[in-house]
Amino acid sequence: MSITAPRGFRAAGVAAGLKSSGDTDVAVVVNDGPSAAAAAVFTSNRCKANPVLWSEQAIKGGAARVVVLNSGGANCYTGAAGFQLTHATAELAAELLDVAPVEVQVCSTGLIGLLNDREDLLGGVRAAVGALDADGGDAAARAIMTTDSVPKTATAGGEGWTIGGMAKGAGMLAPALATMLVVVTTDADLPADTLDRALREATRTSFDRLDSDGCQSTNDTVLLMASGASGVAPDVEEFTRALSAVCRDLALQLLADAEGAEHEIAIEVRGAADEDDAVAVARSVARSNLFKTAIFGKDPNWGRILASVGTTDAVFDPADLDVAVNGVWVCRDSGPGEPATDVSLEERDVSVTIDLKSGEHAATVWTNDLTHTYVHENSAYST
Amino acid sequence: MSITAPRGFRAAGVAAGLKSSGDTDVAVVVNDGPSAAAAAVFTSNRCKANPVLWSEQAIKGGAARVVVLNSGGANCYTGAAGFQLTHATAELAAELLDVAPVEVQVCSTGLIGLLNDREDLLGGVRAAVGALDADGGDAAARAIMTTDSVPKTATAGGEGWTIGGMAKGAGMLAPALATMLVVVTTDADLPADTLDRALREATRTSFDRLDSDGCQSTNDTVLLMASGASGVAPDVEEFTRALSAVCRDLALQLLADAEGAEHEIAIEVRGAADEDDAVAVARSVARSNLFKTAIFGKDPNWGRILASVGTTDAVFDPADLDVAVNGVWVCRDSGPGEPATDVSLEERDVSVTIDLKSGEHAATVWTNDLTHTYVHENSAYST
Repeated sequence: MSITAPRGFRAAGVAAGLKSSGDTDVAVVVNDGPSAAAAAVFTSNRCKANPVLWSEQAIKGGAARVVVLNSGGANCYTGAAGFQLTHATAELAAELLDVAPVEVQVCSTGLIGLLNDREDLLGGVRAAVGALDADGGDAAARAIMTTDSVPKTATAGGEGWTIGGMAKGAGMLAPALATMLVVVTTDADLPADTLDRALREATRTSFDRLDSDGCQSTNDTVLLMASGASGVAPDVEEFTRALSAVCRDLALQLLADAEGAEHEIAIEVRGAADEDDAVAVARSVARSNLFKTAIFGKDPNWGRILASVGTTDAVFDPADLDVAVNGVWVCRDSGPGEPATDVSLEERDVSVTIDLKSGEHAATVWTNDLTHTYVHENSAYST
Repeated sequence: MSITAPRGFRAAGVAAGLKSSGDTDVAVVVNDGPSAAAAAVFTSNRCKANPVLWSEQAIKGGAARVVVLNSGGANCYTGAAGFQLTHATAELAAELLDVAPVEVQVCSTGLIGLLNDREDLLGGVRAAVGALDADGGDAAARAIMTTDSVPKTATAGGEGWTIGGMAKGAGMLAPALATMLVVVTTDADLPADTLDRALREATRTSFDRLDSDGCQSTNDTVLLMASGASGVAPDVEEFTRALSAVCRDLALQLLADAEGAEHEIAIEVRGAADEDDAVAVARSVARSNLFKTAIFGKDPNWGRILASVGTTDAVFDPADLDVAVNGVWVCRDSGPGEPATDVSLEERDVSVTIDLKSGEHAATVWTNDLTHTYVHENSAYST
């Protein structure tokens, strides 16, 4: 059900011919209200795709009644014609659904530099609007897939209200949003500024802590739409917790589906002087190709971990660091600890714990290993 | 000849049993004067190996008469016993050569976390001192190799004076020094503070612009020793130019020998508001795994280049960027330019040019592609 689990939403996914495979590639999600409150966060990459340039402006009023998403083309670096196509998409959806164009969000994903065929895309919008259904969430979640191997959905909720989410993304996952499109819906009745604060808090500790390959996308969007159809205005903290759970669930699904990965790695830094230090150290390790290849090789190489820690400005004593891999403290006081041979890296899930012994703060960043398949897929596939 | 090309130097390389292959693994270089002026730059990694901790302090007097280098063990994260071994190495060399221990620099390379056998290493120092020879430069250059496929040497000079250099390094090449040991000798007669300024200028635009895999080592050292044996005090600018040429020559040899690489990539950023902007943009592209795998796949993927440019704070208009690959302007005004099919990536040397159109400054960063062999070598080899 995902995004159509909350009341007040309809969705659809159709095949418009944008994907050469013939798979579905255009999704529309409609918020039938009564509320149209919405919030969104976008990539912090300065080279943004045309749909992001449009949607960033359109969301400023705090309202969104429709989102149109297409796979099969990112509409990025496609110049003026690309922006016109995004604008035409929003205008057509607005006309068909009798809303204002600025109430339409647009998201695209796929090849960079490729301008989709205008008639194919607009035909897809018409077909999707015609197919809108209160059970259409799963069809929409499938239509936004690119190299994803599975659709990604999650739900949560409280007394009388529900949150549903869908996500796509399978690479180019990096800080300040993984490369991905995410739509989250809720029938809770909350104003746009509350949604905005809750969404920023939820993404800060979920999508922003994914760093699959250090590469930040041009199209990242996380959109939250609230219909208010439950008539319930939940406690803001409770709502934020549920929203955070949905975002974290989707983030870990993205991580598990990253292109070519054989391990999902959670890097926890504890004993940090503050949370920023913990994130900076964890991110530094997550971006080390030598560390990532070592995990692929099932080698709990703590030397490469310390070498990454040492490149940061965080507060720590270089001679007094502890590192555990899958619970085995292979490094104590910046020297050899328990035998590395005690560590098994046969399972996909890997935990790395780094103790900076400099405070009470902690944070976790998630990454993948660097594998032959990653190199193969990303050298053969033009994104 | 390399480091023994200038007058006043003797060198040797011997097999001390540190490498299981039986290859030579201990080198000694002696400056017989009359001057002992010296300067050095070290890794900016805060987790430094024991030889770096020693040598950083020892060089503060601006003098070095001896450098002992070993491969087969980095003596990094080996605790107090590791520092004691470095100290014992310096003391033994000092005693054998009748100099003060603080006039002895020590460099180590090889596995992190491995403490070499004390008797093997000290026996190697004795043997190398016994083998010192005015023609020993090439033997020393071979003894410092680890995964290097070839020894790396370079020479330059002016009227009556000479510079010689040797380097090792074949991975973990990253900013603020590639992972490497470099010794440069000269018979020019210049004081330590002049050598220091010249060395910092030379490394700033050579080793500091290498970014093979984004991973910064714990052992990087570039040592410059001047014997003054020529009796010539060259013009400082001329000396700096020659020193820069030697450093750049060695840096490009390191790049060409990087583990598993199939392409050497020069990323030039021009039209930058200042040099820092140019370096930041070039470095960002050099660190993009998606860009690096694309080049391995012979795909001139300018979309991935713009996506990296967009992650920086440099001055530019995201809608007005040009990108050339091997001279073909595949991206104009942030959109498609000349056909990507016009670009050949069959040769090892690749040039990427990014025009920010925002000023008159330029800089080049060198990197490698990301290949199956890189993943293989770094997942199978514990450093």
